[in-house]
Amino acid sequence: MRIENKNYHTIWLEKASDTVYVIDQRRLPHKFEIMPLRDVDDVTHAIQNMVVRGAPLIGVTASYGIYLAIKHYSILNGNFNEYMATVANELKAARPTAVNLAWAVNRMLEAIEKVEDIAEKLDMARDTALNIESEDIANCEDIGRHGAEIIQAIYAQTRDTVNILTHCNAGWLAAVDRGTALAPVYKARDMGIPVHVWVDETRPRNQGAALTAFELLHEGISHTLIADNTGGHLMQNGMVDMVITGADRMAKNGDVANKIGTYLKALAAHDNNIPFYVALPTSTIDNAIASGKDIPIEERGGSEVLCVSGINKSGMLQEVCIAPNGTPAANYGFDITPARLITGIITERGIIMKKKS
Amino acid sequence: MRIENKNYHTIWLEKASDTVYVIDQRRLPHKFEIMPLRDVDDVTHAIQNMVVRGAPLIGVTASYGIYLAIKHYSILNGNFNEYMATVANELKAARPTAVNLAWAVNRMLEAIEKVEDIAEKLDMARDTALNIESEDIANCEDIGRHGAEIIQAIYAQTRDTVNILTHCNAGWLAAVDRGTALAPVYKARDMGIPVHVWVDETRPRNQGAALTAFELLHEGISHTLIADNTGGHLMQNGMVDMVITGADRMAKNGDVANKIGTYLKALAAHDNNIPFYVALPTSTIDNAIASGKDIPIEERGGSEVLCVSGINKSGMLQEVCIAPNGTPAANYGFDITPARLITGIITERGIIMKKKS
Repeated sequence: MRIENKNYHTIWLEKASDTVYVIDQRRLPHKFEIMPLRDVDDVTHAIQNMVVRGAPLIGVTASYGIYLAIKHYSILNGNFNEYMATVANELKAARPTAVNLAWAVNRMLEAIEKVEDIAEKLDMARDTALNIESEDIANCEDIGRHGAEIIQAIYAQTRDTVNILTHCNAGWLAAVDRGTALAPVYKARDMGIPVHVWVDETRPRNQGAALTAFELLHEGISHTLIADNTGGHLMQNGMVDMVITGADRMAKNGDVANKIGTYLKALAAHDNNIPFYVALPTSTIDNAIASGKDIPIEERGGSEVLCVSGINKSGMLQEVCIAPNGTPAANYGFDITPARLITGIITERGIIMKKKS
Repeated sequence: MRIENKNYHTIWLEKASDTVYVIDQRRLPHKFEIMPLRDVDDVTHAIQNMVVRGAPLIGVTASYGIYLAIKHYSILNGNFNEYMATVANELKAARPTAVNLAWAVNRMLEAIEKVEDIAEKLDMARDTALNIESEDIANCEDIGRHGAEIIQAIYAQTRDTVNILTHCNAGWLAAVDRGTALAPVYKARDMGIPVHVWVDETRPRNQGAALTAFELLHEGISHTLIADNTGGHLMQNGMVDMVITGADRMAKNGDVANKIGTYLKALAAHDNNIPFYVALPTSTIDNAIASGKDIPIEERGGSEVLCVSGINKSGMLQEVCIAPNGTPAANYGFDITPARLITGIITERGIIMKKKS
């Protein structure tokens, strides 16, 4: 996707230097910085500290983590299989909710098991990581195509700008390119359908204000930032035609874990008969988990709730704290949206679990 | 209520200097500053710029505005009745949603019409404003007593800490003392019932983080700050026993306008069979309005959404902006919670419109 008229992916392997590069998303929208990931510890750090985030991108990044781990393996690390088991566990533990992380690591492990020699394992790991990356691009493209059909159907009825509300960031910054929830928006724009996006700020880390607004601004798509509290009011007043969010994990019964606050928007959409779609690659579906109540919900530090980062009027990146000293805070990263509130799941294979309307 | 072991009201008329004083709530929780209001323009400014906020406190402050307007009336202002009509209109227009504002101004106008002489009107205005102030204190006391019975009933069943979620600030800082939504919490604490409050941050102006957390910290009541997105997750997981919010206006049919985002919490409470109460003095009921859809919803500047105030690590009050330059933002101050989602209205006269459970 475009930044200052140049196309970027969120992650790439530079062949000459054999180095993985990512966009440091902690600095956006204020600074656009590229960060090299040179070994698996860099990768774990990047996932844990949200240099990269978004379920699909976490999966791709972890794949390169396995590749880099093999690249730096030496006999000093002990037995290869034990080393890889430790590496895999550390990567999987970096963040608990997005299932794409474990999915990607497991796929990498299965691939490298097929060959014996370490050099062959390294080649296999690089090829598999590159495949996971290019499949993610293709999946997002397909999600965009299927999702845009829903937007087009709304436009065919209203012949007016289609207003789409999204929560958190599930755009290209959450994947390699195009994104999941925003892929249909980009596709609809490409098809000439007028679209406008209501961007939930997404406290406490403000991924909506920082990332989704940044993406849409650079792509020239009409959008408006709102507090997370606002979506219900907009829906009550006919200002939202559909909701699309991403997902970090979907259980077998169709319950979805996504950024904290998604459930509240799903309730409001349901209360106002507004279609609520979740866009995800099928790698986000965890058939080993029966229902949403079994999905682990990440708890993060209270400081993310107590303090906010941004730029001050001198243009300096600063953190300010909004509550009195000594205020306790709780910070749950995700919530569960029950399947009954979801109109359909937009996947690379088409719309699944679609409710009759 | 207490600040550093000293009791304060949010507003008072100092008799010696005949000056109205208020706590400047824009500076809380970082600075505790008292601001004098010397004339009606000071009062209008204080209401408009949220030096004072909260429906009951807005009403009391406007009452003193009328008093100060009469005090400073001279023949140079033209005909008294025309002058007062202009003053009243300007005061009422200071903020559109809280009906207590118009209610208090009208009550003041009716009172001063009963006497002829300007000096008598001044006495009548002062007495009426003082009455409105002391009635507000008594109302909040009674709201606290009625609301605490609900908390006590929950405690009688669970014999465990009662977890109460509140949105925005409807504590003593929103009234003269005790508050509306928090009055039952203070009363329950006084009765020895263990209570814990989940404090919604309440973007975009953070009244929860800044004011409710400040109140509860100074009163020594157990509480935890959460992002506005979090309440649904807590309710799904049995971590909330009841919700209490305040209100800015209630329509005849029981629909309630309150801080933006209240509707989302009411939906989540309803979805999880958690009682959702609104606490208000009956002066917040607007029988002239049939249903919530006719209540005017204030729109404020987008900068409140785009930027956040707090203290930086040097202890300086600063504003930081969280979105890219050029991001458009919308800022609706309130939303409507339909009566069907409200378990009961806690008023000074008891619980009204109570749903059968």
